[in-house]
Amino acid sequence: MSEAAGLPGEFARIARHFRPLAGPGALGLIDDAAVFAPPAGCEMVVAADAMVAGVHFLPDDPPDLVARKLLRTNLSDLAAMGAQPFGYLLTVSVPRDTPETWFAGFAAGLAQDQAEFRLSLLGGDTTATPGPVSLSLTILGTVAPGAAIRRTGASAGDGIWVSGTIGDGALGLLAARGEIADPGGVLADRYRLPRPRLALGRRLHGIAAAAMDVSDGLVQDIGHLCRAAGLAADIEAAAVPLSPAARAHGRLLLCLTGGDDYELVMAVPQAREAALLAAARDTGIAVARIGTFRHGPPHARVLAEDGTEMPIRAGGWSHFA
Amino acid sequence: MSEAAGLPGEFARIARHFRPLAGPGALGLIDDAAVFAPPAGCEMVVAADAMVAGVHFLPDDPPDLVARKLLRTNLSDLAAMGAQPFGYLLTVSVPRDTPETWFAGFAAGLAQDQAEFRLSLLGGDTTATPGPVSLSLTILGTVAPGAAIRRTGASAGDGIWVSGTIGDGALGLLAARGEIADPGGVLADRYRLPRPRLALGRRLHGIAAAAMDVSDGLVQDIGHLCRAAGLAADIEAAAVPLSPAARAHGRLLLCLTGGDDYELVMAVPQAREAALLAAARDTGIAVARIGTFRHGPPHARVLAEDGTEMPIRAGGWSHFA
Repeated sequence: MSEAAGLPGEFARIARHFRPLAGPGALGLIDDAAVFAPPAGCEMVVAADAMVAGVHFLPDDPPDLVARKLLRTNLSDLAAMGAQPFGYLLTVSVPRDTPETWFAGFAAGLAQDQAEFRLSLLGGDTTATPGPVSLSLTILGTVAPGAAIRRTGASAGDGIWVSGTIGDGALGLLAARGEIADPGGVLADRYRLPRPRLALGRRLHGIAAAAMDVSDGLVQDIGHLCRAAGLAADIEAAAVPLSPAARAHGRLLLCLTGGDDYELVMAVPQAREAALLAAARDTGIAVARIGTFRHGPPHARVLAEDGTEMPIRAGGWSHFA
Repeated sequence: MSEAAGLPGEFARIARHFRPLAGPGALGLIDDAAVFAPPAGCEMVVAADAMVAGVHFLPDDPPDLVARKLLRTNLSDLAAMGAQPFGYLLTVSVPRDTPETWFAGFAAGLAQDQAEFRLSLLGGDTTATPGPVSLSLTILGTVAPGAAIRRTGASAGDGIWVSGTIGDGALGLLAARGEIADPGGVLADRYRLPRPRLALGRRLHGIAAAAMDVSDGLVQDIGHLCRAAGLAADIEAAAVPLSPAARAHGRLLLCLTGGDDYELVMAVPQAREAALLAAARDTGIAVARIGTFRHGPPHARVLAEDGTEMPIRAGGWSHFA
């Protein structure tokens, strides 16, 4: 973890807040890089995501939740590949006057999730920025050779399945902004704290023909699976699982196109549905069949209960909207 | 490479500019993560650095040079560990109105350096930001087991050696801002385009007892080696190699404490000096002995030619200064 440009007291801050998070390969964060022997007989899985204050989280969101969301959005990518968390690197760019308490809270959030998801900090960088807090995290995971679940691989006739509930993230953003009612803060909590479906993801090898996590919006992300496989998809709107809190708002289109779900969407051949349901039962993560892949130009359409196609605007959820 | 929050036309942009940079494990940047088998019998070396416009580079710096600096500062960390480049992940946060030509230039710079340093893009993320361009890069490299050069490991009596010349980066920033003369643009070029000393770094196993790259300023960084080894260091100011362009400015203190050198500083036992000089000759990278580690409280002092200690302000170069 290198000191950065012009953050006063940076070395002491790294030692105080980040060194306790460092894993075996991190060399105490005092070196130029981390060094580790990859777990024997595994493939490595790597992904990176950035988050910017005012875009991906609210500037006054508690720093522990910001840290956990950053880690969890990346963990969700590992879940979608069926991978096991190994470690992560972090870059943190913050205004110069960022208080010590912000760092303490940020590190506490990471510590909490490191324990829950069993991974550790490998390295990173802290720098000053004249702009909003800008974060980036690279996650490393492992998977048995050939066992990674890809986005390609769906076949016509495969069922489209999702984990958990859809739309809480998008509604949660509105709730966090105080724009909609949110008794108990259930929706805002789902926006601020994704639940990466790692336990389910690890069970998908041999079950899901394709998978990804839902981050840009369900319809858009199923569109990605369509393009990756050269297939069309029919989504039955009424089959999409909504939480009681989301159902109460009745904003189905927002739920279907909103982002920040961090659920898994999977292509599952009919012969493997029983295995999927067993995996869901074992891991305590609900799954629901919401549609079918079929031959046709790559496009995901949403069908109302009467079979007519619902109008969906192009593109996914924009965090700027 | 996932699309990001609210960058219009982002999928097309990733396909156009970043997909051509993707390596074998990157899965065409269409998946949630990259998957690769680590090279057999190697340890992995990983590091991450962030760069922010107006802090680490000038907002109007050409985008190809910004990209290459980002990649090269990370490659410099690999060089300091004696590692071989393998691949990298990238997050790019840019204002929404960033023109297509900026991305084209940025990707062209990456392509050029990928070819020179033999590595490829594994994944990443692009997002919008209401602030300045914020970049983060995680680099992955490989090293033979146990061969990584650490910051710890110097012994009293070891010589302090540096590669190349010191101070061009700090002077180059002033030159790039038009604040000092820079005939031929030599100094500004050194600021904008670091030369990661990978070829020398790979030769250091069995030669250097400790090494790091000089990024925060020579005196500060030697201080890091002191603290890592529990030793003091005497730096002979007159022995520090300066380029002709730097020498012409006569700002020795700035050269010694300025940042952005991206040279290697090494602790080398006397018995291995011949081997170091041979490695320098073979790789065409000059090295110079600039001082000695000795027993004493961890502190790097700079000695003038008359043996008196020169006054050096605490801390390294601040990019904000």
